[in-house]
Amino acid sequence: MIDIAEHTAMANAIRALAMDAVERAKSGHPGMPMGTADIATVLFTQFMKFDPSATNWPDRDRFVLSAGHGSMLLYSLLHLLGVEDMTIEDLKNFRQLGSKTAGHPEYGHAAGIETTTGPLGQGLATAVGMALAERIMNAEFGDDIVDHMTYVIAGDGCLMEGVSHEAIDLAGHLKLNKLVVLFDDNGITIDGSTSMSTSIDQLERFEAHGWRAERIDGLDPQAIEAALERAKASSKPSLIACRTVIGYGAPHKAGSHAAHGAPLGADEIAGAREKLGWPYPPFEIPAEIRDAWRVAGLKSGQARKEWEKRFKALDPETRATFERRIRGDLPAGVADKIEAYKAALVAEKPKVASRKASENALQMLAEAVPELLGGSADLTASNLTKAKVQKPVTPDDFDGRYIYYGIREFGMSAAMNGIALHGGFIPYGGTFLVFTDYARPAMRLAALMGVRVIYVMTHDSIGLGEDGPTHQPVEHLASLRAIPNMLVLRPGDAVETLEAWDVALNHRTGPSLLALSRQNLAAFRLEMEKANKVSLGAYEVAGCEGEADVSIFATGSEVNIALEAKALIEEAGKAARVVSVPSFELFAKQSADYRAEVIGNAKVKVGVEAAIRMGWDGIIGLDGIFVGMSTFGASGKAEDLYEHFGITPKAIAEKALEKLED
Amino acid sequence: MIDIAEHTAMANAIRALAMDAVERAKSGHPGMPMGTADIATVLFTQFMKFDPSATNWPDRDRFVLSAGHGSMLLYSLLHLLGVEDMTIEDLKNFRQLGSKTAGHPEYGHAAGIETTTGPLGQGLATAVGMALAERIMNAEFGDDIVDHMTYVIAGDGCLMEGVSHEAIDLAGHLKLNKLVVLFDDNGITIDGSTSMSTSIDQLERFEAHGWRAERIDGLDPQAIEAALERAKASSKPSLIACRTVIGYGAPHKAGSHAAHGAPLGADEIAGAREKLGWPYPPFEIPAEIRDAWRVAGLKSGQARKEWEKRFKALDPETRATFERRIRGDLPAGVADKIEAYKAALVAEKPKVASRKASENALQMLAEAVPELLGGSADLTASNLTKAKVQKPVTPDDFDGRYIYYGIREFGMSAAMNGIALHGGFIPYGGTFLVFTDYARPAMRLAALMGVRVIYVMTHDSIGLGEDGPTHQPVEHLASLRAIPNMLVLRPGDAVETLEAWDVALNHRTGPSLLALSRQNLAAFRLEMEKANKVSLGAYEVAGCEGEADVSIFATGSEVNIALEAKALIEEAGKAARVVSVPSFELFAKQSADYRAEVIGNAKVKVGVEAAIRMGWDGIIGLDGIFVGMSTFGASGKAEDLYEHFGITPKAIAEKALEKLED
Repeated sequence: MIDIAEHTAMANAIRALAMDAVERAKSGHPGMPMGTADIATVLFTQFMKFDPSATNWPDRDRFVLSAGHGSMLLYSLLHLLGVEDMTIEDLKNFRQLGSKTAGHPEYGHAAGIETTTGPLGQGLATAVGMALAERIMNAEFGDDIVDHMTYVIAGDGCLMEGVSHEAIDLAGHLKLNKLVVLFDDNGITIDGSTSMSTSIDQLERFEAHGWRAERIDGLDPQAIEAALERAKASSKPSLIACRTVIGYGAPHKAGSHAAHGAPLGADEIAGAREKLGWPYPPFEIPAEIRDAWRVAGLKSGQARKEWEKRFKALDPETRATFERRIRGDLPAGVADKIEAYKAALVAEKPKVASRKASENALQMLAEAVPELLGGSADLTASNLTKAKVQKPVTPDDFDGRYIYYGIREFGMSAAMNGIALHGGFIPYGGTFLVFTDYARPAMRLAALMGVRVIYVMTHDSIGLGEDGPTHQPVEHLASLRAIPNMLVLRPGDAVETLEAWDVALNHRTGPSLLALSRQNLAAFRLEMEKANKVSLGAYEVAGCEGEADVSIFATGSEVNIALEAKALIEEAGKAARVVSVPSFELFAKQSADYRAEVIGNAKVKVGVEAAIRMGWDGIIGLDGIFVGMSTFGASGKAEDLYEHFGITPKAIAEKALEKLED
Repeated sequence: MIDIAEHTAMANAIRALAMDAVERAKSGHPGMPMGTADIATVLFTQFMKFDPSATNWPDRDRFVLSAGHGSMLLYSLLHLLGVEDMTIEDLKNFRQLGSKTAGHPEYGHAAGIETTTGPLGQGLATAVGMALAERIMNAEFGDDIVDHMTYVIAGDGCLMEGVSHEAIDLAGHLKLNKLVVLFDDNGITIDGSTSMSTSIDQLERFEAHGWRAERIDGLDPQAIEAALERAKASSKPSLIACRTVIGYGAPHKAGSHAAHGAPLGADEIAGAREKLGWPYPPFEIPAEIRDAWRVAGLKSGQARKEWEKRFKALDPETRATFERRIRGDLPAGVADKIEAYKAALVAEKPKVASRKASENALQMLAEAVPELLGGSADLTASNLTKAKVQKPVTPDDFDGRYIYYGIREFGMSAAMNGIALHGGFIPYGGTFLVFTDYARPAMRLAALMGVRVIYVMTHDSIGLGEDGPTHQPVEHLASLRAIPNMLVLRPGDAVETLEAWDVALNHRTGPSLLALSRQNLAAFRLEMEKANKVSLGAYEVAGCEGEADVSIFATGSEVNIALEAKALIEEAGKAARVVSVPSFELFAKQSADYRAEVIGNAKVKVGVEAAIRMGWDGIIGLDGIFVGMSTFGASGKAEDLYEHFGITPKAIAEKALEKLED
């Protein structure tokens, strides 16, 4: 039984901290935490399995504040529960440069922030990934070791965003019943009443997606408690629509969009203090209320001690595997297997599309790295993302390693973030490169958070052919390279594709993207070299005697074209070399000496990529020749398109030779 | 009453053309047209108001093939109905370079293609914009002149994509009852059965969004006819889930994903011919079937003649206005009003954020250009997109000029495409610049189609302050400039903002994007110049005596910083000039002489933009100094952030002076 007086005081502590921190920062969103304080208080005092002294305990319940602008709710909770990393000083520094308490929750800024939120809808979609990872881990390690809930607080904005559809459709299909969404149903958006832009019946909507859904009074702690009990017992994911009042307690602004995104002001705050019965000065929490929160924190952490006992009772091998997986280390021996496979490729010299080379590599990697969790946004047979050994994950059997994500590029990418954040897996997922546009908001968050997810993006140029310009990426390589901390890899043959996978698996501080061809590519890495050359970003694949007249720099499917151009240039009596540039980001990280050596001093430098020039000047110089695209593509056979857009050995050779004569 | 035998033969003509064209192209998607041929036949023979001889007639019903991979359905229809622009040769050239019959329908390639589709979900979302434009035009011009339906054929993929949620939620809210979605409910996606990735109840889902929904047998023409009758009579938008069989008629591949995206093969096609009772050779349509289609085309065009009569009976002024609006010409006198307003700004020299300058300009423009149709994705008071004169569009009153799009950036942008394609309006819509990531797929389609839509993207840098890195664009200017045919404008004061609006309004061959600041900016355009300087892309705003030692190039909010840096450099005894670069794309279009003159020969060139360097080398050179961002932003006060990231007059001056001494 909830002690209402105590509950109310505890919830009001959140409200006060939120309004006071926003006031002090002179910026922020007080309305959301004030409206949802009761929900959060019941959740964290009665339900959450969360140890404030061990916020990374693997089997903790996850809490995702999808309505990330209400960040003071999360910061207040962490502080009140006794997370050491969140002091009252941190709250006072809300939204100040260098503080842990950024305007929106930033993953990594403080213990207990499970994910970065703010871009609406994504918290929910990320939580679906967490809940999915939990079920798959559970299928492997059992209820004793992995068995936790994922709770989300989402606002109207989260549920209006399209990604919410993708997320709840996937969650409903997979029956992720340990996922509970608490909908802050306050009827208010920034523009005013939600009735200005939506007439949806959210309960009916969620039910149509296979969820359990109910509506409660979100200011009534007992109603919240009862609803959460029902949700935990459900065989489906649950939506609890909580009728709340934005800015609850503020005498004039409560219930209005005026409480959403600006400080309430001194008068309104004074009025709220009176109305809430909270006479204490800003940032002061009476000892008894603080104690009540600390007790709740201690209680919610109890489960960890029992878990630790169970975990210690496991056989050492399972324990070691679990710990390794949670740490994110690769299994021992992977490097050797990759090396052996590379030797086989060098011997075989397959002429295959890099998407096919990726599939072949995955057949080996999926066995060597069992934490690889694959998937595709309904393009499995095109992206070639499924290894034979990978069993599909289904609503009835989570003991698999492959997700049929459906036609949901954004939902897939956000779920991959959640899977990576949850721990235990290295998620990868595929679609066509052009549809990174659909997934981009989640890819940006992956880069911002620095999580290891791998995008397998095939059909990476006009080389995909007849599907035409809607399906042909042109600006995508540049615009993905533009995202800070996004590692873009465009391998040119089977060996480079394997090396790219190797780089991606070992790249733990951010997402990697493999841009792969539909068309076949001849092997050019013909000799065994143990070193991973893709990791250098760029390297010479074909040199020449003496000084080169022409240096040709190419990526992916254009390396072969560059090699043919080299032959034509040599036929004309000039010396040419070819540099493969599988990754601009990795090349930029090399020493100035190495970079200078690879770029070289040829009179003519040519960049070749079936994409726009943006970003190439740093390699070929402003006077370099660029052979690529400057417009959208077209529908036609791949060969015809390369010819039409002038991306051919002949065009390269002619331009280079002409310039040599200048 | 539908003549079943005739109907079946007409539908089979579509099936045959689709499978034969795909076979000939050796690539394409036969399954969708074969499955939906009955739906399309009933729609075009019994319902569509569509004149094959006047495909641009303004009051025609719109048909959007959201499942764009089924392009042969549309091409076949246009050919059979007698659209001159679509010959049998065009069908034979399906998917070949230079043909009208691209892999996916491309707007502008042939008469009768209402929009480019292929990226899933967007056809539906674009159609919402068309249906919305229709209602707003109807409110203005009445039932006699604008009163048409918008029909969509959408597949499972369209309805899985998140944008479908945004689109149907908006349409349901606005009660767009002249919108009918025919759902090709074939239970198949590329990966296999839809049951592998979704368990949704689409009828319940659409009903929750305020739609009328029913399920029918999509192979039964009478059921289709009856359902379309009910849909036309509905007061809500309608979903008709049509149970179909993908690849209907193919003896072995029908009902399987094998029929989706590859030629059926000779044997299967021979079997289909037999099963369908279609003994004719490829691309041969018997005269009687061809005649039946031509008669249907003539019949469906009848309504146009009656409309022409009604239109001619209008008063000349209304007629002229309607014709002008459909042509897309601006009203007479707009240029004068812009000039007068510019003179006022030059006199006033307001220090305002460019978002505010945009709002001020809009107060004038919304009156001068009544076809401006504004909106925001729930950030009206932040984007400052609403002019006072603009009445909101509501479900009960379409006689407005402002749409509360809700928290639906992608849905808004796709709807804007539909509004522009419909004709009669110049749509603009706002959100934060960082959330172009959410809208990007629709923005790319706008650029590909070359339609005039205007994005009002505010909060365009770290200058937005405390909301932090999730809300701060860093890579967005570069990645938007990367999109072919996207015009990016970043004005630096009120005059430039007005000029940017002027450019955007007159830019008829593609989308324009205004990147606008949250923070206040001092005026630097202090003298009246009639010429639109923003249209030059870059121009000198502050020169110096003699040769400049330093040229500083800056955009938007950084022009003021550059001007302060100039003063500091001059205090140190060196000559500096400042060039404002509001648009890279427009600058690239200027003559080589003009470009060279503006870039100049200063020893030191500095680029200043609170964003990444990508794209700047062409202006400042590889050895130019770039003062901007190379990482994500941070949460803090705008001033603190500019200081922290070193984007200050002092930092610019120091770096420039240091380099001068090299």
